[in-house]
Amino acid sequence: MKSPKGKTPLQRTILVTNDDGITAPGIRALVKAVSPLGKVVVVAPETPQSGMGHAITIGIPLRLDPVDIFGEIEAYRCSGTPVDCVKLAKDKVLGKAPDICVSGINHGANHSINIIYSGTMSAAMEAAIEGIPSIGFSLLDYRFDADFRASMVIARQITARLLNNHIPGGALFNVNIPSLQTRSLKGIRVCRQANAKWVEEFDERMDPGGKKYYWLTGEFRNLDQGEDTDVWALANGYVSVVPVNMDWTHYALKQAIEKEWKLNKQGWLK
Amino acid sequence: MKSPKGKTPLQRTILVTNDDGITAPGIRALVKAVSPLGKVVVVAPETPQSGMGHAITIGIPLRLDPVDIFGEIEAYRCSGTPVDCVKLAKDKVLGKAPDICVSGINHGANHSINIIYSGTMSAAMEAAIEGIPSIGFSLLDYRFDADFRASMVIARQITARLLNNHIPGGALFNVNIPSLQTRSLKGIRVCRQANAKWVEEFDERMDPGGKKYYWLTGEFRNLDQGEDTDVWALANGYVSVVPVNMDWTHYALKQAIEKEWKLNKQGWLK
Repeated sequence: MKSPKGKTPLQRTILVTNDDGITAPGIRALVKAVSPLGKVVVVAPETPQSGMGHAITIGIPLRLDPVDIFGEIEAYRCSGTPVDCVKLAKDKVLGKAPDICVSGINHGANHSINIIYSGTMSAAMEAAIEGIPSIGFSLLDYRFDADFRASMVIARQITARLLNNHIPGGALFNVNIPSLQTRSLKGIRVCRQANAKWVEEFDERMDPGGKKYYWLTGEFRNLDQGEDTDVWALANGYVSVVPVNMDWTHYALKQAIEKEWKLNKQGWLK
Repeated sequence: MKSPKGKTPLQRTILVTNDDGITAPGIRALVKAVSPLGKVVVVAPETPQSGMGHAITIGIPLRLDPVDIFGEIEAYRCSGTPVDCVKLAKDKVLGKAPDICVSGINHGANHSINIIYSGTMSAAMEAAIEGIPSIGFSLLDYRFDADFRASMVIARQITARLLNNHIPGGALFNVNIPSLQTRSLKGIRVCRQANAKWVEEFDERMDPGGKKYYWLTGEFRNLDQGEDTDVWALANGYVSVVPVNMDWTHYALKQAIEKEWKLNKQGWLK
């Protein structure tokens, strides 16, 4: 079993991380799913980091400690964010780039606009910046005792395929999996990110001292009727795979604004 | 002085936020710069939030308290992240979308890959998700006592121009300003995001108890020779303006992977 890259599973290193924290059932499922594909090393946050986006730890030092909760598999808990975990894994644990980085399996969706807030995807994105092929996996079930069996099948398939493909360095994928049994999944769709947003309403309360405080709540709203989006795929029983770009330049808006602003020869607004 | 949108400065609301915290000189400079353009309302983090990326606060409630450090201008400090500030400002302070959101002026660069880690840009991005035209301003000087005079001129010019343009809803701009006197600035360039990264090296130390800890350090590396990038513009004395896309789908990779994976009719990997 040799891949086109010429590496056997024994020669491959797979970095596993997440944002729900190292004790979450989702990361245990992911470790199990990908361990037949290479040497797995886990570096994950010691505390839950949901909603951390692409946060990094500045101004306080980081801790990194071994844990033995994955049997024979080398694993470390880190005091920082998912992005910190990836940075530390490369520089201090592995001392080199792994062959692939997988993040998750997240307890809850990270499709469409959720990618912006997602610690799961930020970890994968950080690895991709380093030129490491990376995938974030998320199951559309927030519960602690979510059923990860179908997600494990999908995670193994897609990770194996990516390891065996000639993918340009740094390729990054956002994979979301409907909360269904394996036999009920309709297939895999390569999608674009749906245009969607959260409509927030803060729940305003009074503390025992008479001071106001606010809980963030919100309702997800899909603004995109396209059938080529991740939201559509998931609603129709498909696994969604969105290839992610790290060049965030809006080229159409760039052209429009250059025309609209009419900068003069010296480069100033007239 | 009526804009094409038909609003006078008195009828416009400008939301100002940042990630260095509400007491940073940079936000004071921004408030001064844009206050002639409309009614300014400030909602900013009470503590520095650099490197927070697009983090949101989940699991703990938020506080929002008035402050009077901007003279007559309505201002609030928030216990959360820059993104939390924008969400709370819209829902609880303004009760509606402002006409524009400006974030900064950041003490330090947010060009190229730094956009991913930037709390300044995340605040602006959150407003853009809400369909609010938004700009993040960053000065290439990390110091507390940085000279914001040239940045204030630029921030006022660009904000005024955006308020008076017919910009599609949610347009988002990443503006970086070289650390130069106004007269030394060469002009404004509309750019693409340079392909760049940070090369991390963690500084490993021993605490008094004999346990290791790590400080994140790193060296910025520009991998992009293009003269249409923000890094080039800044190095050559120009203000860089990068229009930012919130659709992160990598369309070229989407096509490539659809071809490479050859999903069968049923949508499965073969």
